Amino acid sequence: MKVSIVTIGDEILIGQIVDTNSAYMGTVLNEIGLEIKEILTISDSEEAIFSALDRCLADTEVVLMTGGLGPTKDDVTKVSLAKYFGASMVMNEGIFAHIERYLGSKGRPILQSHKDMALVPSNCEVLQNAVGTAAAMWFEENDKILVSMPGVPYEMKDFMKRHVIPRLSKKSKKQVIHKTLMTTGIGESIIAEKIKDVESSLPDHVKLAYLPRIGGVRLRLSGSGSALDLPEQLDSYGEKIKLQLSKYYYTDEDTTLEAWLGSYLSSQGHSLCTAESCTGGNIARVLTKYAGASSFYQGSVIAYSNQLKQRLLNVSAETLENFGAVSGQTVTEMAKGALELMDTDYVIAVSGIAGPTGGTAQKPVGTVWIAVGSRKGEIVPKCFTYPGNREMVIQGTTQLALNQLRKLIFGLL
Amino acid sequence: MKVSIVTIGDEILIGQIVDTNSAYMGTVLNEIGLEIKEILTISDSEEAIFSALDRCLADTEVVLMTGGLGPTKDDVTKVSLAKYFGASMVMNEGIFAHIERYLGSKGRPILQSHKDMALVPSNCEVLQNAVGTAAAMWFEENDKILVSMPGVPYEMKDFMKRHVIPRLSKKSKKQVIHKTLMTTGIGESIIAEKIKDVESSLPDHVKLAYLPRIGGVRLRLSGSGSALDLPEQLDSYGEKIKLQLSKYYYTDEDTTLEAWLGSYLSSQGHSLCTAESCTGGNIARVLTKYAGASSFYQGSVIAYSNQLKQRLLNVSAETLENFGAVSGQTVTEMAKGALELMDTDYVIAVSGIAGPTGGTAQKPVGTVWIAVGSRKGEIVPKCFTYPGNREMVIQGTTQLALNQLRKLIFGLL
Repeated sequence: MKVSIVTIGDEILIGQIVDTNSAYMGTVLNEIGLEIKEILTISDSEEAIFSALDRCLADTEVVLMTGGLGPTKDDVTKVSLAKYFGASMVMNEGIFAHIERYLGSKGRPILQSHKDMALVPSNCEVLQNAVGTAAAMWFEENDKILVSMPGVPYEMKDFMKRHVIPRLSKKSKKQVIHKTLMTTGIGESIIAEKIKDVESSLPDHVKLAYLPRIGGVRLRLSGSGSALDLPEQLDSYGEKIKLQLSKYYYTDEDTTLEAWLGSYLSSQGHSLCTAESCTGGNIARVLTKYAGASSFYQGSVIAYSNQLKQRLLNVSAETLENFGAVSGQTVTEMAKGALELMDTDYVIAVSGIAGPTGGTAQKPVGTVWIAVGSRKGEIVPKCFTYPGNREMVIQGTTQLALNQLRKLIFGLL
Repeated sequence: MKVSIVTIGDEILIGQIVDTNSAYMGTVLNEIGLEIKEILTISDSEEAIFSALDRCLADTEVVLMTGGLGPTKDDVTKVSLAKYFGASMVMNEGIFAHIERYLGSKGRPILQSHKDMALVPSNCEVLQNAVGTAAAMWFEENDKILVSMPGVPYEMKDFMKRHVIPRLSKKSKKQVIHKTLMTTGIGESIIAEKIKDVESSLPDHVKLAYLPRIGGVRLRLSGSGSALDLPEQLDSYGEKIKLQLSKYYYTDEDTTLEAWLGSYLSSQGHSLCTAESCTGGNIARVLTKYAGASSFYQGSVIAYSNQLKQRLLNVSAETLENFGAVSGQTVTEMAKGALELMDTDYVIAVSGIAGPTGGTAQKPVGTVWIAVGSRKGEIVPKCFTYPGNREMVIQGTTQLALNQLRKLIFGLL
C-alpha cells in the first residue's frame, strides 16, 4: 500500500514553521511496512487542495492530510473536502459536546468559531480529538482512504497512534516487526565493517537499517512475513550483532544515551554531578530534559572562566598556568573538585575549545578533555578531537562525555 | 514569479531526516517577494523526478531542487535531469579541478566516484561549490528556471546566498525590502491590540508579519514597489510601532534575545553569572551557544538538589523549610549566593516546577520564580506560571529569565 502525505499551511511554505509532522508520519508508516510515495506541502486554498487530491488519490491508496482544521478564516480544509466529495456540511453533536467539555474544563468560553468546528462533511467518519478540540475525519471510498488531521504535532501524533497506524496495519498485507539496538562511540562505516558477516547472512525478509543520530548509531532490524518465530529470528540476529559491537552497544530500547544513563543511575540509586566548561551547561541540560532527573542528578558547576575553575572547583593556579584550561590535569582537578563539592557517586568534567576562535596549533578548535570518575575510584581523563562547528563540538562533546561515564561504570574504559 | 521546491531523498520520506532545507528556502524566497507554490519531497528515482518536473515546470516559473547529487549509487538526480532534457553527460574540467583541490587540501584520495561527480548534463550552467564538492546546476529554457543543488544544508544555503537569491531578485519584478523589530514578553494578540492603529494605517505596499518564536514575537515590515524613500517609510512605521511596544521591543536586528543580551553585556564590559534549578543548565546553554560568550559569561551553579542550594549558594535551611525551593525567598538567596560566589555585575537565579510531576494546588507545574539582580542594586524576584509540558517550561522560563534581566538593566522592572 502506497501513501501520500499532504501538509496544508502557508506558514510552512514561507518557512515560518519547519514541517516535522511529515518526518514523524514517515517514520511510523515505514515501521509498519508502508511505502511513502511523496510528501507535499501546499497552501491553505481550495484550488491547491483539489489539485493535490486529484493527484494523490490517483497515485496512492492512502492520503494522510494535516492542517487547516483550526477555527480561523484561513483554515479551509473541511469545506474543501466536502466540496471535493460533493458532500454537504453537517453538524456533529459528538464534536460539539466534546468541545464544550474540553473548553469548559479550561474555563474558556465557547465562541461561534468553536461551533463551526463541529461542522463536518456528511460522508466522513469522525474521529474525536483526545488532546485538543478539532476532530479528524476518515474518508473511505473505492478502496481509497483519506484521513484529514489537525496540524498541531501532538494532536496529529495521537490520531496516528490511536487510529491511523492500527487501522492501516490491519489493511496492509505486509506485517513488519522491528528490533532496535542502540550503539554509541562508533561510526556507521566501522559498524558495517564489524558486522559484515552477520549482515551478509541476513535472509531476504530481514533488513538492517543504520540510523545515525548525534549520540550514536541506532541499528534497526526489520522482519517481514508470516513466520511465527519472526521475533525469535530477530532476537537471534540481534545477539550476533551485539557480540560484534559489545563495547558500543548499550540497550535494545529506542531511547537516547542520556535518558538510558539517567534511568540506569536512578535504578541503582547512584548520584551524578558535572563540572562543565566548553559545553556551557549542555551536559546538565540533556540529563535534566527527562522527568525524574532529580532522583540521580545533583547539579553542576559551569566554570566558564578560569577564575571560577579555581574558586569553585579548586583547580590550582599552577595547573592552569603550566598545562592550560584545556588539559588532562585541569579536567582531573575539576572532577575532583566537583566530587568534593557535590558529594556524588559519579562525576563528569569537561574542558575544551568549542570555537570558532581560541584554537592553536597544539590545541586546535574541537580539542576537548573529558574526565570521569567515581567517589571510590580514580579520575580518568581522556583527550578527544571533535570535528565541526561550535554547536557540533558542544553537542558531540556532551555525547562523548556521557559515553565515557558509561564505559567507566561498566568497566569498559 | 512562482516557485516550487523539490526535495529528493528516500531518507526524508521515511522520516530519518527532517527537511529543514525547504523552510530555509521558503523564508529567503518569501523575503524577496516570491510566492512558493508547493514543497514536494520525492524518492531518489528517475520516475519520481520526471513526474515532479512535468508538474512543477508546468505550474511555476522556477523549480529549486535539492538532493541526490552525492557520489553514491542511489544519487540519480544528475543523470535523470540530463535524460529529461535530452542532453548528454559531459566532463566539466572546472568541477574536477575543484574536487582535486578540495580533497587534496584535506589529504583525502580521489576515487572514481569523485571523478563521476565532474560529469554534468551538457545543457546546464555549472555553479561551483564553495564549501563542498558537488556542483550545483542552473538550467534555463523557455522562461523556466531549474536549479539543482546538493542537499547538505550549509552547501545549499551557500548556493542560495551567492547565486539563487541574487539572480531571482533581479528577475523578479517585485522589489521587496524588510525591517525587523524584535519583541519579547508579549503575545501576538496583545501586540495586535496595541498597534492596531498603526497597522490599519499601513498602505497597500507595506505589509506587517507576526513571526512568533519561543523567545518572543518578531515583527517584519515588508515594503514593495519602486518608491525611492521606501526605506524611510518602513523606518517611520517602525518608529510608530516601537512607540506602542516600548517595554517589549529590544532591537531591529534579526537575532535572538540571548545573542542580543550577550552582545550588549559584552559591549558594556559587564559580567553575568547564573544559578539554575528547574531550567537545568538551559540558561547557561543558550548564553554560551554564541562565540565570544566568555567575554561576559562567568559561569553557573546548577543546584538541582536542595542540598546544593544550601551548600553552594548559601540558601538557608530555614528558607527552604518555611517557603520551599520554589519561592521568592529561595531564588533571592540563590541570586545573592551566586553573586557572592562568582562576583559578577549581574545575576539570574531560577527555581520552579518543570513537571510533569511535583506540582501542588498552590504551586502547579509551570510555577517558576525568577530573580535578577546586580552587584550594586537589590535582587528582584518574580513569580510566573508558564503553561505547557516539561520542555516548554524549561525553554519558556529561560526566555522569561533573560527578559527579566533585560528589564532590570534598562530600568523596566
